[in-house]
Amino acid sequence: MTDILLRGGRPWRLPAPADLLVRDGVIARVGQGLDADGARVVDVSGQLVLPGLVEAHCHLDKTLYGGAWVPHSADDTLTGRMSNDLGRRAELGVPSVERITALLERMSSFGTTHVRTHTDIDPAVGLRGVEAVGEAAAALSDRVSVRQVAFPQHGLLTNPGTAELLEEALKSGVEAIGGIDPAGIDRDPVRHLDTVFELASRYGAAVDIHLHDGGTLGAWELELIIERTAALGLGGRVTVSHAYALGQIDGAHQDRLAKGLAEAGVAVATAAVYSFPVPPVRKLREAGVTVACGHDGIRDLWGPYGSGDMLERAMHLAYRSTFRADADIELALEAATYGGARALNLPGYGLSVGDQADLVVVPVGGAAEAVVTHPPRSLVMKRGVPLPA
Amino acid sequence: MTDILLRGGRPWRLPAPADLLVRDGVIARVGQGLDADGARVVDVSGQLVLPGLVEAHCHLDKTLYGGAWVPHSADDTLTGRMSNDLGRRAELGVPSVERITALLERMSSFGTTHVRTHTDIDPAVGLRGVEAVGEAAAALSDRVSVRQVAFPQHGLLTNPGTAELLEEALKSGVEAIGGIDPAGIDRDPVRHLDTVFELASRYGAAVDIHLHDGGTLGAWELELIIERTAALGLGGRVTVSHAYALGQIDGAHQDRLAKGLAEAGVAVATAAVYSFPVPPVRKLREAGVTVACGHDGIRDLWGPYGSGDMLERAMHLAYRSTFRADADIELALEAATYGGARALNLPGYGLSVGDQADLVVVPVGGAAEAVVTHPPRSLVMKRGVPLPA
Repeated sequence: MTDILLRGGRPWRLPAPADLLVRDGVIARVGQGLDADGARVVDVSGQLVLPGLVEAHCHLDKTLYGGAWVPHSADDTLTGRMSNDLGRRAELGVPSVERITALLERMSSFGTTHVRTHTDIDPAVGLRGVEAVGEAAAALSDRVSVRQVAFPQHGLLTNPGTAELLEEALKSGVEAIGGIDPAGIDRDPVRHLDTVFELASRYGAAVDIHLHDGGTLGAWELELIIERTAALGLGGRVTVSHAYALGQIDGAHQDRLAKGLAEAGVAVATAAVYSFPVPPVRKLREAGVTVACGHDGIRDLWGPYGSGDMLERAMHLAYRSTFRADADIELALEAATYGGARALNLPGYGLSVGDQADLVVVPVGGAAEAVVTHPPRSLVMKRGVPLPA
Repeated sequence: MTDILLRGGRPWRLPAPADLLVRDGVIARVGQGLDADGARVVDVSGQLVLPGLVEAHCHLDKTLYGGAWVPHSADDTLTGRMSNDLGRRAELGVPSVERITALLERMSSFGTTHVRTHTDIDPAVGLRGVEAVGEAAAALSDRVSVRQVAFPQHGLLTNPGTAELLEEALKSGVEAIGGIDPAGIDRDPVRHLDTVFELASRYGAAVDIHLHDGGTLGAWELELIIERTAALGLGGRVTVSHAYALGQIDGAHQDRLAKGLAEAGVAVATAAVYSFPVPPVRKLREAGVTVACGHDGIRDLWGPYGSGDMLERAMHLAYRSTFRADADIELALEAATYGGARALNLPGYGLSVGDQADLVVVPVGGAAEAVVTHPPRSLVMKRGVPLPA
């Protein structure tokens, strides 16, 4: 493996420009005027250097990316989108290794080096989604690291046979277990969460629960999740995705929940999609809650939007948060990098000596500008190896 | 002027692919298998052909586009942004013919052929903004048509001397007069609107009023605008920009106001910015209200966002409207094309024989895909002349 010296870049959060020496897949040195010492020198003067972008919430298995345009065919309700998904996925060849591969390549070209994806599991599709994602991810493992969440999209308690399949997925090596609207969709929040957390505890899996349930209902479910995380000692291993309720309740209620999430070690992943409520990112960060960011669906039966670019997605998060100041906009980038890395428990993530050399170089002077303008990347590197553009 | 035959494209809303023959700056023929008849043939097979995009609400005079990144320096209130604007614009050289030119060139490269811009007028800046925009627009008149709104950004009644300057602007040929939050900012909605409408009526000017005032207050101000539009016979010449209130009131109230806006001939222009409420586009269109679309500020002291691409802006409008189906997404494109053209009273706008040949070609098969993916344009044409990329 060739050593590489990134010369003159601006590593994010360092006070001054610095060179990065990459050796054996890790960051070996960081400093000004480093000796090339035989390394290939890449001039990135004046450009922003970020750790690899982290896509913390997507649905690779559902994507139609790279194929012909498919007009959206579901009605305007969540249950309508669910039944449309069940009815049409086979016809459209979903899950498709080819489509998943196309999307992962696209994500990688934008500098995403780590992905957490929620893979549908139900009696009809079985583990075919898990296998398709696994096959695509294995073939692209030199570009992007993919972790799956075994996800009961079409119900857990309400869809008999699903719990057994989730367990099978965990046995086969899937690292996390999901859940979905324990009240609104699965109709029995206590038993839903007990099932999910019991499986997580037994298999040492992480937890990542879709929570669209809004207002005081969703807020109460967050309490249930906090209680179970604390009781089982799963702090740092649990994420709540979407968490619209956090964007709907009053400020004092937000404060109480933020404190509870931080103390229990429960992260929040947001995609800032459509006009749905966005959790209060600044308040959560100030309380010490990990905030991660992802696309949610990309070009699938649930909706046609999404580019795969995590800098653009961070822009959406900043924009919907009405972040204008640089320091605020950088909170969205934090969610798309370090926040995602904490939520996913990525080891060796960052721009310090010893960290894995997953890097992306953006041809702008600063982090806020990178989010707002999200221009084509100058360089993407995975484990110290520059990727083809 | 060379005749041009666009061969094999998909003119938006025609049921089948068709050629367009452009002669003497207008669309001379539309049909299948047209004879080139000496025209230069441009193959656009399978690509979407749109009429020129219409930017119906922006602030060219404020822009810092094309310069170095300027970190946002205002606090999180509207009045804070107003005082920050007043305090820093001179230091930053705003208004700047160079910056305005850079932004107009950028807009044009994305296929925007018509722009309505709100130009600040107040005793401090006088008519310098109007002159700067006029100078940049004149130099680029072969690429883009620019119309100005004389805009009392920093108050009308509350800022003595502004009304006289607005009148001076109208005398000098500015085509429209603006207003801003007659209640929330200018503190006297009746007298504010009477002043604006009196000037409009006397000078034959169009009207375009910023209305951020929310809920029932903003809704009541819409009634005042409807009443004055009808009383003065200004139907078809009046636009309300932003109109957040329309996105906040209940459905029955929306219905009543939509009917009133349609009957009076008052258009709504929306930018779908940040997390602010978006008017109910589908409901307004179904009621017969003209809906236009624009960016609002682009890279200025009011916020750092905005690309100048009206297809991307239409994406934001569709996204915030939770439009997933193609027919819905096309409503956002309608706002960025025909809707804007109606709001601005553009003559000869469209894809029919005799219309001015302001065209943009997008390398996708359909309109919804153009909005969602907003890829680089294949061709932009102004008055029959292809523009340099």
